[in-house]
Amino acid sequence: MSVLIVIPAVISVLALASAFSFNRAVVRRAQGSERMTTLQGYIRSGAFTFMISEAKVMLVTMAVIGAILWILFYWEVAVAFWIGALLSLAAGFVGMNAATHANARTAHAARKSFKDALNVAFSGGSVMGLSVAGLALIGLVIVLVLFRRWFLPGNLVIETSNLLGVSLIRGALIVSAYSMGASLVALFDRVGGGIYTKAADMAADMVGKVEMGIPEDDPRNPATIADNVGDNVGDVGGLGADLLESFVGAIISVMVMVMYIYVGRANLGLEGLIAKLGLTAGLSEGNYWWVLVAPLLIVGGGIVASLLAILYIRFSRRQEGMQRVLMNGTRLAALLTAITTFVIVWMSPLSLNIFWEVILGLVAGVGIGFFSEYFTSSSFRPTRELAKMNQSGPAVGVTEGMALGMMSTFMPVILIAAATIISYQLGGLLGVAFTAMGMLSFVAMTVAVDTYGPIADNAGGISSMSELPPEVRERTDKLDSIGNTTAAIGKGFAIGSAAFAALGLIAAYMWSAASVPQEVVLPQLPIVGEVLAPMGGASIPVGAFVIAGLVIGAMVPYVFSALLIRGVSRTADILVQEVRRQFKEMPGIIDGSETPDYNRCISITAHGGLNKMFVPAMIAVVTPIAFGLIFGRYALGGFLIGALLSAIQLAIYCANAGGAMDNAKKYVEEGHYGGKNSEAHAAAVTGDTVGDPLKDTVGPSLDILIKLMSVIALVFASLFPLQPIFF
Amino acid sequence: MSVLIVIPAVISVLALASAFSFNRAVVRRAQGSERMTTLQGYIRSGAFTFMISEAKVMLVTMAVIGAILWILFYWEVAVAFWIGALLSLAAGFVGMNAATHANARTAHAARKSFKDALNVAFSGGSVMGLSVAGLALIGLVIVLVLFRRWFLPGNLVIETSNLLGVSLIRGALIVSAYSMGASLVALFDRVGGGIYTKAADMAADMVGKVEMGIPEDDPRNPATIADNVGDNVGDVGGLGADLLESFVGAIISVMVMVMYIYVGRANLGLEGLIAKLGLTAGLSEGNYWWVLVAPLLIVGGGIVASLLAILYIRFSRRQEGMQRVLMNGTRLAALLTAITTFVIVWMSPLSLNIFWEVILGLVAGVGIGFFSEYFTSSSFRPTRELAKMNQSGPAVGVTEGMALGMMSTFMPVILIAAATIISYQLGGLLGVAFTAMGMLSFVAMTVAVDTYGPIADNAGGISSMSELPPEVRERTDKLDSIGNTTAAIGKGFAIGSAAFAALGLIAAYMWSAASVPQEVVLPQLPIVGEVLAPMGGASIPVGAFVIAGLVIGAMVPYVFSALLIRGVSRTADILVQEVRRQFKEMPGIIDGSETPDYNRCISITAHGGLNKMFVPAMIAVVTPIAFGLIFGRYALGGFLIGALLSAIQLAIYCANAGGAMDNAKKYVEEGHYGGKNSEAHAAAVTGDTVGDPLKDTVGPSLDILIKLMSVIALVFASLFPLQPIFF
Repeated sequence: MSVLIVIPAVISVLALASAFSFNRAVVRRAQGSERMTTLQGYIRSGAFTFMISEAKVMLVTMAVIGAILWILFYWEVAVAFWIGALLSLAAGFVGMNAATHANARTAHAARKSFKDALNVAFSGGSVMGLSVAGLALIGLVIVLVLFRRWFLPGNLVIETSNLLGVSLIRGALIVSAYSMGASLVALFDRVGGGIYTKAADMAADMVGKVEMGIPEDDPRNPATIADNVGDNVGDVGGLGADLLESFVGAIISVMVMVMYIYVGRANLGLEGLIAKLGLTAGLSEGNYWWVLVAPLLIVGGGIVASLLAILYIRFSRRQEGMQRVLMNGTRLAALLTAITTFVIVWMSPLSLNIFWEVILGLVAGVGIGFFSEYFTSSSFRPTRELAKMNQSGPAVGVTEGMALGMMSTFMPVILIAAATIISYQLGGLLGVAFTAMGMLSFVAMTVAVDTYGPIADNAGGISSMSELPPEVRERTDKLDSIGNTTAAIGKGFAIGSAAFAALGLIAAYMWSAASVPQEVVLPQLPIVGEVLAPMGGASIPVGAFVIAGLVIGAMVPYVFSALLIRGVSRTADILVQEVRRQFKEMPGIIDGSETPDYNRCISITAHGGLNKMFVPAMIAVVTPIAFGLIFGRYALGGFLIGALLSAIQLAIYCANAGGAMDNAKKYVEEGHYGGKNSEAHAAAVTGDTVGDPLKDTVGPSLDILIKLMSVIALVFASLFPLQPIFF
Repeated sequence: MSVLIVIPAVISVLALASAFSFNRAVVRRAQGSERMTTLQGYIRSGAFTFMISEAKVMLVTMAVIGAILWILFYWEVAVAFWIGALLSLAAGFVGMNAATHANARTAHAARKSFKDALNVAFSGGSVMGLSVAGLALIGLVIVLVLFRRWFLPGNLVIETSNLLGVSLIRGALIVSAYSMGASLVALFDRVGGGIYTKAADMAADMVGKVEMGIPEDDPRNPATIADNVGDNVGDVGGLGADLLESFVGAIISVMVMVMYIYVGRANLGLEGLIAKLGLTAGLSEGNYWWVLVAPLLIVGGGIVASLLAILYIRFSRRQEGMQRVLMNGTRLAALLTAITTFVIVWMSPLSLNIFWEVILGLVAGVGIGFFSEYFTSSSFRPTRELAKMNQSGPAVGVTEGMALGMMSTFMPVILIAAATIISYQLGGLLGVAFTAMGMLSFVAMTVAVDTYGPIADNAGGISSMSELPPEVRERTDKLDSIGNTTAAIGKGFAIGSAAFAALGLIAAYMWSAASVPQEVVLPQLPIVGEVLAPMGGASIPVGAFVIAGLVIGAMVPYVFSALLIRGVSRTADILVQEVRRQFKEMPGIIDGSETPDYNRCISITAHGGLNKMFVPAMIAVVTPIAFGLIFGRYALGGFLIGALLSAIQLAIYCANAGGAMDNAKKYVEEGHYGGKNSEAHAAAVTGDTVGDPLKDTVGPSLDILIKLMSVIALVFASLFPLQPIFF
């Protein structure tokens, strides 16, 4: 194995060590009053209780799936899968641990100054960001070193598996299984956490704000702790596992493609592509190592860049204009990533095109982020107009919010299409995969900034509940609002990179599906081209199955979303009844003489989240396998493309409709169109409640769904028949 | 030309003559009291004023587009386009004329008996049904006879157009242009009428019901006449043009494919497909005429079957259980269509497979209709549960309604996929086109039943406004509720057939795009297969452009829907202000001493409808042409498939979410969960208002959008470059 692997190994250890030191810095801070400590204790224990129950469900599922992989393929595949799953699980826990330490401490620090509060919150976020990137990278290094045999050029052959007689490249299968483990945990985290957080939020608002007329985060509301727990399990735990999964998916799709290209020297006729990699002499052994490890080096550069940017923000001495500092930090991370990428590519025997592909990813990600912000921030026209339309009542508000979300698909899709075209011209489908990786290369910074938002949000909750002076809440609100802007950019990255990473994974699946059968002449097997078999004159009658795959694939995200939305509203419904019951049976709650039963609310919500997460997660696992087994590998290609197309649009629509409805409500609350308690406000609150599960449960879960289905197809590719099993 | 053409010619004249006689029967009935006559006069003049203004916009657009077709191609193409457009326009007018005659007369007949009212309403619907089918068929016969030269086997060659040097089959272009004319008018009618009807409905409800607390259809509401006008221009005029367009699209996609198959004897290598047609000796001249005219004969059989079923319903002597009679009539029409199809195919030299393909269309259509009913009728669990969830407030109601709509995509998509697979096995893509035709073959009956609903609705409105005895309103409400059930089946047919017809048109486009270039070796050009170029080893670098086409195509239905929703809510907003102004400035309205200014409301709504219809309609026309010109014909294939996938799901989602929210509201009004004026009712009203534009404006327009874009691609196919114009 190439010595190059030492570099990402060192960088990942550096990232984890920095995360550890940031964590210690947070824990060392004072926690504040006794009441704050108690509240934080409630939140921490609620969050950990839920995450542990969730982890138990996952561990059982993982054990079963790993065993299946072991039986079907090789023990190495199962082990790689478990490593991916465990690291993804760990990312969620580490981040949440830091966040639930940082929340009360941020509130306490806000008593001193705004800058101090920002430091604590951002340190908490940095722990998460650095852990996510460090864990993902170290896991990959471990897998590569542990199973190095199977990545040696000499062993990189299409072999026939002992049990089933199917053919595959073992090395490609191992890294794919690693990614699949990470994705599966991420989906569970996102779906379970997403249902938890939004059900608690809806119920707390519906009974507390609307029926009882008490403010948000009021300690008299029995669901308020559950709501704060939700912020941690959904927005922190879910987000960490999600971005770890995206990061891994983007890296491994490059690696799998490289392995197929290497094997393809012999039987895939990919000379043109190899030339585009700048390897005009073909892939030699030395070159091969460079291309295989290049993704690890580039993201390693991104981690170093993020660390420097985090330090820049952390030690900035400015007291004012922190939004600017955060934005500058993000830009700095992007710039440094570009520089390190340039150096790496320049020193390698690879084409400079790879550098441009990574840059393209950075630029497209920032562009998509900008349009997310444009459509969801109340600084711009769309959300302001939405706020205004709320004057005509809730129906018009919801309708307009939906229209806004639908309209907002336009620019991100154009950017995705443009980046696809350009990166494809630069390096074929491998170029597209490098662009996806570019988008995610400074993930540590993105996660740090994204996580800091929910920490600030929680700090605000704790400060209200602990009856700290109002200027503290003002400071945490300011923290929160700065976080919203940077988080919009983060969401853009998440959606854009999901689209690209899925495309890369689908392409890797196609290569892997095509490389197997010796008995089929390859040029006659253009997968989706079979839709149009009569035109191309192709002879294998799978055309209708591909069409069926496309429409069925496009339907899956809808059914998945429906289950998630129902999970939220049904769980919220049960919680609403519990909260109403508490207010009714314990009249002392409202005058402050009785403490509400927070734990009952927490456990009801947790139960709902856990209960409703299993079916949607299993849809993601079972449907591609079942479809592939029945209709064959070509139809499954159609299925994946259909799902991707549908999920991209739905995810953008959900994220932006929900975001805009949320911010329109805040805009009205700032005093526009009648301000709080006006008719416009009531309408905007309804809109916000409709939009909440869309933006925080459905949207992020869809991002994972398409990647998970694609990576599952990639892992199981060799099992699927060439043609449908009937006809 | 074959003498076979005489049969459809005779049948279409028969259909139009029957329509004329039904119309006379309606007009001869008494109109009722002076007040009813006045109200009907208001509605008629409002509807005609709008339709005429709309027609003016369309005529100008048609003149311009026709001139472009003339210049680019041949005069015959322009003339065929105009014939299609004018007949589609005529279908809307004829139907609306009958409906606005029948409404007051139905109310008057309801004073006598329920059966009598049903007779009048159903006769009005039958005029529309028979006109739509008769006009569509006679137009096709006229085009075939007028330009018979270009359908002669001898002239059926790929020729090079004089002006641009592009190659095409002139006969195929002529029938495609006919279909394009019909589609374009249908889209204008659906979008303009859809915005009109829902804006009026929303405004009337929001101010009348919610703010002023006066009942629906109260003559004191200034927007009430506009609301009734809307039912006619949207639900009657729009529906007529819509189904005429579907019917024509399904027929011509078969004809275009047949022509390409015939030409393909020489250069497309479609022998396998020709064998599947049962023409093992290849397409001889005689066989060719049979296959070309077969669609006309089969739909002619469907018209005769529908006419018999209409007479069965019209002269049924039963007084009770009319729902049963209507359902039996629909079944009878389907059965008779199956029998006539069998006879036609059996007498022809064609394969019996064609019969099975048509049957499959009938069965799939009925199946999709059943699931539409299951998800939207309050007789079944989903809508009842939605009604129950409304108890938790409007946000939960809307959220659950959305989830229900998303969930409801499952079964229709499975049915579409299954029917695609089976029909493809039976006859390739031509088999799919025959299945689409089968779904629409008894369109006359479907339209008759669908149109009768809005007539009954209008009759109810007139009876309330004329203060007729309450039992009259009860009878018209019963009429209306029977209509809702049968209409659900009609909607299923509309969506299912749109998906199939679009698939047929896209396939025809692919053939036409592929048949042109002599310099390209065809088997190397699998369109969407280029997505996966590395796999198939294909060499033309259009892969990324196809991917871009897929994602951009999938985005277009979202932006289109957003514009429609906004059109409705913004027009409603202006109307709301006008209605509020009238109530304020004319205090006599509410005590009945002043007559509201109905005409101002009508003209405001009309203005909004006309204003907001142009941009969405132009999106449908311009985007495929622009995309094809810039990115080439292969990328456009991806664009159309992406649009189809996205539009199918969105259309089902919108139709069923809206339908269920409407019926959940009615279910609550029947006294469940608190009944009228309860909290659940208020929430359900909000849900209904959100759902209305989804089900009546967006859903039906999406059905047309995908067909119109596909047929435009088909007409302009020869102009698009093989490869993107840059790179």
